[in-house]
Amino acid sequence: MRLFCILLAGIFLMTPLDAIAKDDDRARDLGIPFDGATGPLNSITDVKGVEVGHVTLISGEGKLTVGKGPVRTGVTAIMPRGKASADPVFAGWFSLNGNGEMTGTAWIEESGFLEGPVMLTNTSSVGTVRDAVVKWWAKQHKTQQPWVLPVVAETYDGYLSDTHGFHVTEKHAFDALESAKSGRVAEGSVGGGTGMTCFEFKGGIGTASRKLSEKSGGYTVGALVQANFGQRHQLQIAGVPIGKEITEGTYKKRENGSIIIVIATDAPLLAHQLKRLARRAAMGLARTGSVAGNGSGDLFLAFSTANPGAAKAEGLIQATFLPNERMDALFEATVLATEESIINALVAARTMEGRDEHKVLGMPHDRVRDLLKKYNRLEKGDGK
Amino acid sequence: MRLFCILLAGIFLMTPLDAIAKDDDRARDLGIPFDGATGPLNSITDVKGVEVGHVTLISGEGKLTVGKGPVRTGVTAIMPRGKASADPVFAGWFSLNGNGEMTGTAWIEESGFLEGPVMLTNTSSVGTVRDAVVKWWAKQHKTQQPWVLPVVAETYDGYLSDTHGFHVTEKHAFDALESAKSGRVAEGSVGGGTGMTCFEFKGGIGTASRKLSEKSGGYTVGALVQANFGQRHQLQIAGVPIGKEITEGTYKKRENGSIIIVIATDAPLLAHQLKRLARRAAMGLARTGSVAGNGSGDLFLAFSTANPGAAKAEGLIQATFLPNERMDALFEATVLATEESIINALVAARTMEGRDEHKVLGMPHDRVRDLLKKYNRLEKGDGK
Amino acid sequence: MRLFCILLAGIFLMTPLDAIAKDDDRARDLGIPFDGATGPLNSITDVKGVEVGHVTLISGEGKLTVGKGPVRTGVTAIMPRGKASADPVFAGWFSLNGNGEMTGTAWIEESGFLEGPVMLTNTSSVGTVRDAVVKWWAKQHKTQQPWVLPVVAETYDGYLSDTHGFHVTEKHAFDALESAKSGRVAEGSVGGGTGMTCFEFKGGIGTASRKLSEKSGGYTVGALVQANFGQRHQLQIAGVPIGKEITEGTYKKRENGSIIIVIATDAPLLAHQLKRLARRAAMGLARTGSVAGNGSGDLFLAFSTANPGAAKAEGLIQATFLPNERMDALFEATVLATEESIINALVAARTMEGRDEHKVLGMPHDRVRDLLKKYNRLEKGDGK
Amino acid sequence: MRLFCILLAGIFLMTPLDAIAKDDDRARDLGIPFDGATGPLNSITDVKGVEVGHVTLISGEGKLTVGKGPVRTGVTAIMPRGKASADPVFAGWFSLNGNGEMTGTAWIEESGFLEGPVMLTNTSSVGTVRDAVVKWWAKQHKTQQPWVLPVVAETYDGYLSDTHGFHVTEKHAFDALESAKSGRVAEGSVGGGTGMTCFEFKGGIGTASRKLSEKSGGYTVGALVQANFGQRHQLQIAGVPIGKEITEGTYKKRENGSIIIVIATDAPLLAHQLKRLARRAAMGLARTGSVAGNGSGDLFLAFSTANPGAAKAEGLIQATFLPNERMDALFEATVLATEESIINALVAARTMEGRDEHKVLGMPHDRVRDLLKKYNRLEKGDGK
Repeated sequence: MRLFCILLAGIFLMTPLDAIAKDDDRARDLGIPFDGATGPLNSITDVKGVEVGHVTLISGEGKLTVGKGPVRTGVTAIMPRGKASADPVFAGWFSLNGNGEMTGTAWIEESGFLEGPVMLTNTSSVGTVRDAVVKWWAKQHKTQQPWVLPVVAETYDGYLSDTHGFHVTEKHAFDALESAKSGRVAEGSVGGGTGMTCFEFKGGIGTASRKLSEKSGGYTVGALVQANFGQRHQLQIAGVPIGKEITEGTYKKRENGSIIIVIATDAPLLAHQLKRLARRAAMGLARTGSVAGNGSGDLFLAFSTANPGAAKAEGLIQATFLPNERMDALFEATVLATEESIINALVAARTMEGRDEHKVLGMPHDRVRDLLKKYNRLEKGDGK
Repeated sequence: MRLFCILLAGIFLMTPLDAIAKDDDRARDLGIPFDGATGPLNSITDVKGVEVGHVTLISGEGKLTVGKGPVRTGVTAIMPRGKASADPVFAGWFSLNGNGEMTGTAWIEESGFLEGPVMLTNTSSVGTVRDAVVKWWAKQHKTQQPWVLPVVAETYDGYLSDTHGFHVTEKHAFDALESAKSGRVAEGSVGGGTGMTCFEFKGGIGTASRKLSEKSGGYTVGALVQANFGQRHQLQIAGVPIGKEITEGTYKKRENGSIIIVIATDAPLLAHQLKRLARRAAMGLARTGSVAGNGSGDLFLAFSTANPGAAKAEGLIQATFLPNERMDALFEATVLATEESIINALVAARTMEGRDEHKVLGMPHDRVRDLLKKYNRLEKGDGK
Repeated sequence: MRLFCILLAGIFLMTPLDAIAKDDDRARDLGIPFDGATGPLNSITDVKGVEVGHVTLISGEGKLTVGKGPVRTGVTAIMPRGKASADPVFAGWFSLNGNGEMTGTAWIEESGFLEGPVMLTNTSSVGTVRDAVVKWWAKQHKTQQPWVLPVVAETYDGYLSDTHGFHVTEKHAFDALESAKSGRVAEGSVGGGTGMTCFEFKGGIGTASRKLSEKSGGYTVGALVQANFGQRHQLQIAGVPIGKEITEGTYKKRENGSIIIVIATDAPLLAHQLKRLARRAAMGLARTGSVAGNGSGDLFLAFSTANPGAAKAEGLIQATFLPNERMDALFEATVLATEESIINALVAARTMEGRDEHKVLGMPHDRVRDLLKKYNRLEKGDGK
Repeated sequence: MRLFCILLAGIFLMTPLDAIAKDDDRARDLGIPFDGATGPLNSITDVKGVEVGHVTLISGEGKLTVGKGPVRTGVTAIMPRGKASADPVFAGWFSLNGNGEMTGTAWIEESGFLEGPVMLTNTSSVGTVRDAVVKWWAKQHKTQQPWVLPVVAETYDGYLSDTHGFHVTEKHAFDALESAKSGRVAEGSVGGGTGMTCFEFKGGIGTASRKLSEKSGGYTVGALVQANFGQRHQLQIAGVPIGKEITEGTYKKRENGSIIIVIATDAPLLAHQLKRLARRAAMGLARTGSVAGNGSGDLFLAFSTANPGAAKAEGLIQATFLPNERMDALFEATVLATEESIINALVAARTMEGRDEHKVLGMPHDRVRDLLKKYNRLEKGDGK
């Protein structure tokens, strides 16, 4: 069997692939109403310094042969201060439903810092990616710390991909790390999200951001999700019961997916305040209709790019932070950016066929528009 | 000044009071669509054994004189197995935003059990009610345990009531406990919810339940909330942006309320599983539009009335529980019952004027119906 | 019956009372070896700003009549920045075994701040003291916050005292607060510790401190415990099995006590770092032989007096903190100060007879000295 | 360079290797006094069903060349119900200081179950071992679950070993799993503990157990530690300040080690009760003098082999458990078995030279005996 392996690093390579993303519509392009002002890219990379890299692995079709394929998987790397920096960021995390893995959380909880990248991949490849980060970090940075505790999170892509075939290699993790950059982030069936499904539509990576008013500090909150959860009937978009209206293509007997949510902000927040943001991701998720099923690994991480140098090992450290009393706008932004990221993943991801003729529909844009109209929720002046 | 104090214990005394609840409409009566089948009363008391008692304190009007009034407050008692029982229940709790008090949680977390009633009152009265439970428990039960660690939770009613006047007495707590009973539960401006507000409408106590299908075990999940949170623009009902449409009567500069959510079920669950339910209450809350503001004490408790005798001190204990794999229907029920409880509180609570001419509007039923229609969400065949 | 009530506020009144403390020996005076350098007073008040006040209630003897006595109880108030200040401190807490109450912890966990005093009393009086703090706070400070969430912790004194008689009043709590001061802290059977027992000796309040070397920053760590736990055979002092050697006067069938540990430091630490200190209190406790029995409410709180003004509600806040890498000396100091505080409580507390002729021995100083000698652990040059 | 790789699977191959363990002395053989009765092997394998397998990698000497050696590392596998079983066990975990990795904990916390083996290795090899478990599990068991979330914990062996050389392979993990068996467990420089140090002596794997009295239920509690922490001056054995007396061979400027503690019991306990056991491991650790330094990954896991079948996915489950009131003997056993496991690791591990002529002394048995005598703590009738 010929194993044809497409390695796609970053959006530049993604764009010509019509099969993966027919167009570059995002949720707002469909006229879905969302609250709040976005950053320029409506992306986690609106938070200055944040870089994202994807490696997308798509190869083979037909019957599953473990170790051979078909392959629908990948790796996504999120670098809080960009790949050139070894400077940790204040961080906090929250497990809404722990049926999943996010390595490195004991140290985040203890130290208050996230010390390296956040990697997203499939369940079986967590170890490979984790050790790859150890190697990459040692090579990339001349850090004095003898050990690193990488953060690698996962969702399960076994419905479409030969997930037990361990197709993600160390090299793929390196490539995701090396390809990380600022700017627009590819969404849908890319990177760690390649083989993921969401509300029984095709899911994957989604991102969004909110820019706070100047009165609220002018900070940016970005979210990036690897969305792989939900049963169709649960899906709500802008309060519209989309999942009850579009019933085609359902295939799940029970919830068995997951979602990883990464929240980034440039607002100066301490570790315990970032845990507060991480908990709000649950509320953004809830707005899409999820109830965080037992089979779901719903693990959320929030970090702040403010306070560079706050993890130095000597002397005294000065940190700046917002009063708790000023966090409400950040809470709202987190909820809204999370919600929109999920919908963006649904909008971006197109129909995909994987192993054993398992076919997962891309959410039909026209139907969504029609339903928004039916429920009087179609945003006026929506494009296209 | 004449201090006119109305003490209302339980629903029987409540019903004739038109000033407090104009009619007994509940959310479903307005045609608001909710998913899932309710129990017979659509109330936490659908969970067999659960009893609820309210003491409602309404007196005085006009200018605030600390210690004199006006008074808009009370106490609500929830007895997991009824007031005749000293048998603990498996329980778990979750703090979505800890700007509030729920006493007794360290022991719930440690032991896995809730050993007595759950009391709801105003912030300043937590101590009085807590010690009252100690006394009542000693008198009510011949328990061998030398100490009790009562569970008392609160939200803040200082916008309407002379909350620093400490008008709740030990006697009121006793009366709430003694008046607890099964059957229909009064909602809105009653018990601990008397002076509470919600999305800048009048709030207070609300309850709802879900009955699982026989296939899912036929279990009941009930919720009871003391709702005192939210800014108007956030309010969503069944996905309809009610809070953006009804802008009259708003008065809050920032979020500074809270919500206590109590989840009861007869499904056999262990302590760590009940923590899972408690976390889902956050998702029900999120569906109403809340982002859990910094000023909000959002503390949630879940208990199961199954497994009587599971807290005995000698021998070995047999407990029955559901597989984690069968919890999804309970998660969904928790989310839905929480959401509906909040809306029920809003629907039941009528306009109230409290201290210093502070007036909080009851949510206008007709407007809500109109908006449901506008957004094509009005349930067909809605009554009245 | 005549209720003879001695109210003792602060150390000044304590000293003449021979019946309570025969002399002012402390653990080091007996030649017990401890590591590390103490602050000038070897007390939590070595941390600048910290004030402590005790109210001690001792009255009656003979048979227990609930509500009449005998009374062996009290209240201790710890003010992180002294009673004149309403400025919160960064804080964190830890429950080693949650069979006890410490109110206000949800907000400490959420906000990262302790906003008022820490009160210690008996189990039944938590509510009274809690509401008293609400009142005192409102009177003492013109704070803008509408509600306060007092921190009140407890241990159970029912073996000696009429604990269900509710002898602690609001007034006693006020007096403890008003009498708080810097300087030497009375130990043993005083304040909240009046009726407490420890390893089946008389226990109660103990305190100690450690002064870090200049190289480690010169910071001070103080501990104050309300010690009411342990079975005799467990007791170890400086590694010497005192509890196996002194078997007289034991009376417990099982562990049913508790310990509250409060750690104060002037080292600049953030909230999540103070949780780290709070966890180390467990390690100091372990060195005395405790295994944290099921009946024990072992709740620990740590705060830092550095960073005044860090809880302001407006603008941006600058905070200073130590690198995690520099915390080891603080961890060690916390462990050592906790251990010594407990031994200090044992050394200070003298034999007491309470209700129903229950008599609890003060730990015999001479026997301890002899045993230290037997095990070659008696510190050279020990005084007296 | 010739890479000479010794792969030692299990105790059978270990015994002839004098260089690694000069004799099979254990702590009690030196006359160190410990409380409580042990199981027949004084080992975690006294808990029926528990199997342990080690793979020990020792090769090369002299200067470090990354990727070449010297190698002093390995893998240890602990199988709660033996390698033939895919039946999960109730479990709970606790992070005393999270500067380390233990994968799979989010699901333990959520589900209450540990579903597979617990693997111990060096920091850099967590990923390799983790993915190896995924593969092994799929091959070993025909489980219906689509994904597994392996539990792999680590400590850092970079002082002696070429830890960044990634010498642990998938095959080594398989071998550790396959070689797991009941019976006596090799201690000291074996398995994951091969290159570890403890109190600046050679450390590694240690184990111990306690058998409860029939009155307390006759249950067994076993501990197994991978000990890699501590500075010399801190070391206490049976309360004797060994670390202050034996000062030779110290080399650490600061604490930078870790300890993984695994507690097994056949006592029927629920998940939340096992978290209580896990917390007590901290108290056993404290008795050896540790203060859980910042650089230490002190992660503890406890499981119960009772209640087979409790993780089934269908129907209702019956579980048996002990009342909280009966847990004190288990708490004590956990503390004691943890403490003795650490001392056993120190006693078993012999002097080792690793990379760059780094030499770590085995704790000198004679000196320890002499010091026990000096402090009147030498157990009478001690062997050899």
